[in-house]
Amino acid sequence: MTRPEPRDLLGEIYAQWAVEMAAQPEMSTRLLRILFDDWQRATAEPESVTYQHTEIGGVPGIRVRPHDANTSRVLVVLHGGGFALGSSASHRKLAGHLAKACGVEAFVADFRLAPEHPYPAAVEDGLSVVDGLLASGHDIGDITLVGDSAGGNLAIAVALRLMAAGRALPRQVLTMSPWLDMENSGATIDINDATDFLITREGLQANIDRYLSGGASPVDPFVNPLLADLTGFPRLYICAGDVESLFDDSVRLHRLAQKCGVDVTFSVGEGQQHVYPFLAGRHERADAEIAAMAAWYAAGYHS
Amino acid sequence: MTRPEPRDLLGEIYAQWAVEMAAQPEMSTRLLRILFDDWQRATAEPESVTYQHTEIGGVPGIRVRPHDANTSRVLVVLHGGGFALGSSASHRKLAGHLAKACGVEAFVADFRLAPEHPYPAAVEDGLSVVDGLLASGHDIGDITLVGDSAGGNLAIAVALRLMAAGRALPRQVLTMSPWLDMENSGATIDINDATDFLITREGLQANIDRYLSGGASPVDPFVNPLLADLTGFPRLYICAGDVESLFDDSVRLHRLAQKCGVDVTFSVGEGQQHVYPFLAGRHERADAEIAAMAAWYAAGYHS
Repeated sequence: MTRPEPRDLLGEIYAQWAVEMAAQPEMSTRLLRILFDDWQRATAEPESVTYQHTEIGGVPGIRVRPHDANTSRVLVVLHGGGFALGSSASHRKLAGHLAKACGVEAFVADFRLAPEHPYPAAVEDGLSVVDGLLASGHDIGDITLVGDSAGGNLAIAVALRLMAAGRALPRQVLTMSPWLDMENSGATIDINDATDFLITREGLQANIDRYLSGGASPVDPFVNPLLADLTGFPRLYICAGDVESLFDDSVRLHRLAQKCGVDVTFSVGEGQQHVYPFLAGRHERADAEIAAMAAWYAAGYHS
Repeated sequence: MTRPEPRDLLGEIYAQWAVEMAAQPEMSTRLLRILFDDWQRATAEPESVTYQHTEIGGVPGIRVRPHDANTSRVLVVLHGGGFALGSSASHRKLAGHLAKACGVEAFVADFRLAPEHPYPAAVEDGLSVVDGLLASGHDIGDITLVGDSAGGNLAIAVALRLMAAGRALPRQVLTMSPWLDMENSGATIDINDATDFLITREGLQANIDRYLSGGASPVDPFVNPLLADLTGFPRLYICAGDVESLFDDSVRLHRLAQKCGVDVTFSVGEGQQHVYPFLAGRHERADAEIAAMAAWYAAGYHS
């Protein structure tokens, strides 16, 4: 298998990680987490945004506050990293760009990670953040759930849990390159193997094993939202790069959401890597996607 | 050799790095750099500070702007990491706390790193930042050079280069746990070996070899400021932990500065690890040191 040269910094970073992981197949979970915090390197500092380490609903994280933000509205950001990696540090700047474009605050949650904390810990932490926001006076309609990669799965799962409980739902759910299929069966895992610089079937399976180590089934709709009934689901945004291994997850989510009558928008990043909005401030396609997400976000308050 | 348990998050982080480096003795320079960017984890986000990726004098870095800062004054921050590691990402929050306490801007320079760029590249980049600030209208008296560990060496070397050129000098130089002795002969490298969770003689020598790979002598005063004549040197601040392997470098710098008639302040952090101000926002001793540095900084404008 021959990979093309990376076309941008995100591809370079992923290719560099792949070299390091291949050189040390038994890399510790701690070092993997430090490696994935390097995600931050893809993103330029968004200006006029300040940050605060805090907790909401008992969940630690970083509150992201753009200058002149509407502080009644909030993005609850559930970060990617296969449920096991990633952090508020890796995603701080990405959240900053998105929050700034939307003109609202964000909270990047450091939810509990697998394998120490398998499903449902992360989903429950997402619910705790929502409940914490409600307890502090936010309306459920002020909340948008946001997630990339495994965090996209979590954002959808949090909404599904609220639906299952018959509770009022967040206004909308925004996903970037969501990772949904815990059966590891997506067609593009093979088709895009040579063009995705980060993701391999083996890497996905390792993270599935970590996330489901508590005994959850890979076909449980709360861990595999492609098997959920999305009827009544909030407005949904999906973006994904068409050369990604996980592109098929977005294609299937889009099809399922349409079938279930969800108000869904699907933005395809031609030639873009996994979670390409990470290049915000450094790459015009990422900046365009941030702007598109913000326009979609705003439309949710006018419909 | 038995080490005590780490007393704080910084000690924990250093101990974790030591485990990872011992597990992979041939760790790539790239992975070492990613590992050292984890320094950021020690520091809480300072609130009401915003950041901008930019360049000054052709040197890339992060401009750190506290809300309501005096933007005519600036801290030029030269980061630690043995001349080979560390970055604006590892030091962003530390610079944010210090800049906020001083009420001024900071620029954390991503100077060129060894071994790709041995001495004098980093010193010349520091000089380029100073020249860039002067070219953009700052007065030399508006500038304070700041550096921790190897960055403390660089901050002093930049001032020494300006002195040697007969140029006007920055108002003051602030160092945290400066690393100065390129002969690797400090007494506390042995004495404090069991209480310093990061630094070993072998690690120091590897960084010396990287930094001097261009052929500089370890007794050149521009790479080993302990051998410099500091007569006429700017006001100087030194802080260091007394259980550090590099504590002796600070003791010797303090003694040399006194001998040369420099206005020097030495703050000793009892039981503190290397560059303990990294714990700003998380540990009262670090917060006290940030406050002490800011008080010293302000005094430089009233004397």
